[in-house]
Amino acid sequence: MHKSKLGGFIIDCRTSDLPAAADFWGAALGMPIRELPGAEGQLYRRLEDSQHGLEIEVQKVEHPSRVHLDIETDDIEAEVRRLEALGAKRIQSVQTWWVMEAPTGQRFCVVQASSPKFHERAAQWP
Amino acid sequence: MHKSKLGGFIIDCRTSDLPAAADFWGAALGMPIRELPGAEGQLYRRLEDSQHGLEIEVQKVEHPSRVHLDIETDDIEAEVRRLEALGAKRIQSVQTWWVMEAPTGQRFCVVQASSPKFHERAAQWP
Repeated sequence: MHKSKLGGFIIDCRTSDLPAAADFWGAALGMPIRELPGAEGQLYRRLEDSQHGLEIEVQKVEHPSRVHLDIETDDIEAEVRRLEALGAKRIQSVQTWWVMEAPTGQRFCVVQASSPKFHERAAQWP
Repeated sequence: MHKSKLGGFIIDCRTSDLPAAADFWGAALGMPIRELPGAEGQLYRRLEDSQHGLEIEVQKVEHPSRVHLDIETDDIEAEVRRLEALGAKRIQSVQTWWVMEAPTGQRFCVVQASSPKFHERAAQWP
């Protein structure tokens, strides 16, 4: 048995100016911006969502700008298989997560659980 | 003075089969699906997010599938002006909401506040 839930979303921005992109989205959503250390900080800024407990990040990308959802889980392989059974497809394994594509066409990621209330809020799957 | 916050997101699906699209996303996110009455029900299914208190809907659309964010507010015109000052552009007024475009290219909507904890969680703007 494993668990999963909506982890949050990533605001993918095709931009050369990640700080400006994060400034816009932080101000638009009323969320403080946190810089991240090391290589991660070159690609991501975190928006602190104390309102809902979601993991929200602004990401610098090369593809067209969009928003993608993250599903967080305590067992990535089991969750990817569950989503495949629902009709999603594996697209690419990246570092610790999987990029998948929904039957309705949106890309999304399956990531390791990190939200503080994961075990309390997540659904449990057989 | 007015208030705003992240209201939720809409999973826009280019599909002729809204129930199937909602079935996938409800199962993927572990959220119950609620049908909506009347004309709204032809285009939308609600996903009940008791985990985070977000307004999440699956929408049948004609444009390519994507996910778009909704910002909820108690004063749409004031919020649209605030977002314009941050660099966003008005795209289209639809029923009671505005479609806008971020400087980073994503479309999003400014909608009337409806979440139960809006006044408690929203940021207040001068």
